[in-house]
Amino acid sequence: MTVIDFTAFIDRLATASGETILPFFRTTLLGVENKSASRDFDPVTEADRAAEAVMRRMIQANFPEHGVVGEEFGNQNEDAEYVWMLDPIDGTKSFIAGFPIWGTLIALLHRGMPVFGMMHQPYIGERFSGDNRSSRYRGPSDGRKLAVRRCPSLQEATSFTTSPLLMNPDDRAAFSKVEAEVRLTRYGGDCYSYCMLAAGHLDLVIETELKPYDIAALIPIITGAGGVITTWEGKPAQGGGRVVAAGDRRVHEAALKLLNC
Amino acid sequence: MTVIDFTAFIDRLATASGETILPFFRTTLLGVENKSASRDFDPVTEADRAAEAVMRRMIQANFPEHGVVGEEFGNQNEDAEYVWMLDPIDGTKSFIAGFPIWGTLIALLHRGMPVFGMMHQPYIGERFSGDNRSSRYRGPSDGRKLAVRRCPSLQEATSFTTSPLLMNPDDRAAFSKVEAEVRLTRYGGDCYSYCMLAAGHLDLVIETELKPYDIAALIPIITGAGGVITTWEGKPAQGGGRVVAAGDRRVHEAALKLLNC
Repeated sequence: MTVIDFTAFIDRLATASGETILPFFRTTLLGVENKSASRDFDPVTEADRAAEAVMRRMIQANFPEHGVVGEEFGNQNEDAEYVWMLDPIDGTKSFIAGFPIWGTLIALLHRGMPVFGMMHQPYIGERFSGDNRSSRYRGPSDGRKLAVRRCPSLQEATSFTTSPLLMNPDDRAAFSKVEAEVRLTRYGGDCYSYCMLAAGHLDLVIETELKPYDIAALIPIITGAGGVITTWEGKPAQGGGRVVAAGDRRVHEAALKLLNC
Repeated sequence: MTVIDFTAFIDRLATASGETILPFFRTTLLGVENKSASRDFDPVTEADRAAEAVMRRMIQANFPEHGVVGEEFGNQNEDAEYVWMLDPIDGTKSFIAGFPIWGTLIALLHRGMPVFGMMHQPYIGERFSGDNRSSRYRGPSDGRKLAVRRCPSLQEATSFTTSPLLMNPDDRAAFSKVEAEVRLTRYGGDCYSYCMLAAGHLDLVIETELKPYDIAALIPIITGAGGVITTWEGKPAQGGGRVVAAGDRRVHEAALKLLNC
């Protein structure tokens, strides 16, 4: 059974969502709401909603039989053969602080498996995409295949997590065992970290509390670039939760071992 | 006494250093060294050295009587009336991980006071500059004046620091008192954070262990955008060390009080 090539359509989704989001980036138009009333600041913007609405409208007009799962407007026909997973602005905290390291995540799942993913950074004009077999980068002045880099051990690895403060105490304790071994840990990054892993600039990303739409688009990019991405239990990662991505299988294995010991 | 307008020359320095650095960004040319042999990973690249050399050569050819202080090649005639302070790649850890939130810092000091500063992000094509009286941004598709935003209290402030792990234990304890009060703390950012503060996207940046060339270029940008930047003791910040920058004077005062209590 052949998977239809949706590449051109996904590029159109990225272009349309980017045009919808950019007027809200670094402007005083930006009205930040507080989605959860707690101290954990989870901003969501008008841009988020407008961009998801644009993409949903395009999907429904072109593929009315497809399902859609999005951060802002919930699930629609999510048992369909093809399901889109959309996160219009992954990295909202970077977005509201003016940092251009957020991205629009667009995933296409076929029978529950992510078969195509794109991360679009419209301010810089970068697209990272993959279909599990190969991955590529297109930027304002160049384009190339994405490939992970070799890294023989945790001790030589550069590791990323968005913030250890997002982890529950048990997960944070497990994470800190990995942090003690790696050469360098950096915080922040969201979807951008996974793309830099696919591009061979860092070795390990460990996160928790992910939603499916936070990670589904990144799986075909990382896999297509030669990387490994699973849950902390070594299972497929498209359900979200606790995720470990590595460029080198040896680093992935060593990280899983420490996280679970 | 009039300060000569060096604006066009500083743009030439930024263009030349950017062209020198970019071939090393996100390529396998990148050879990372470990400047300090300790676990604190302080990478320095060929790009850093090449860009500083280019800028020094241009300054010496055009203004042989000026002094130059740079990260890579030390101090030269640093008691001159005009002294340049250069940090070719501020944010080397972002640089080596492929994140485009590093920048080239170029400061001009007149009799010890920073009178002009620029932060150049050549990959995105952004220039943030200021002369203490006004500041501006020029990007790939637009340009505008920079202005800080109002923020009445610490409790409403978004705060940035590159990493609390870079602080000594006493400073980290003081910093954590501020962190407990603000609405949101983010890690990472280096020079980019100060520019986003000048642009009105965040409210507070607190750092320690800064070198003069890490901060001198950012002072005229923040001051020109209406912000306040001092040491933790409330003194001028161009010597580096422990620095507090805020968009709103009330947040600056509240942060200083907590850091010193």
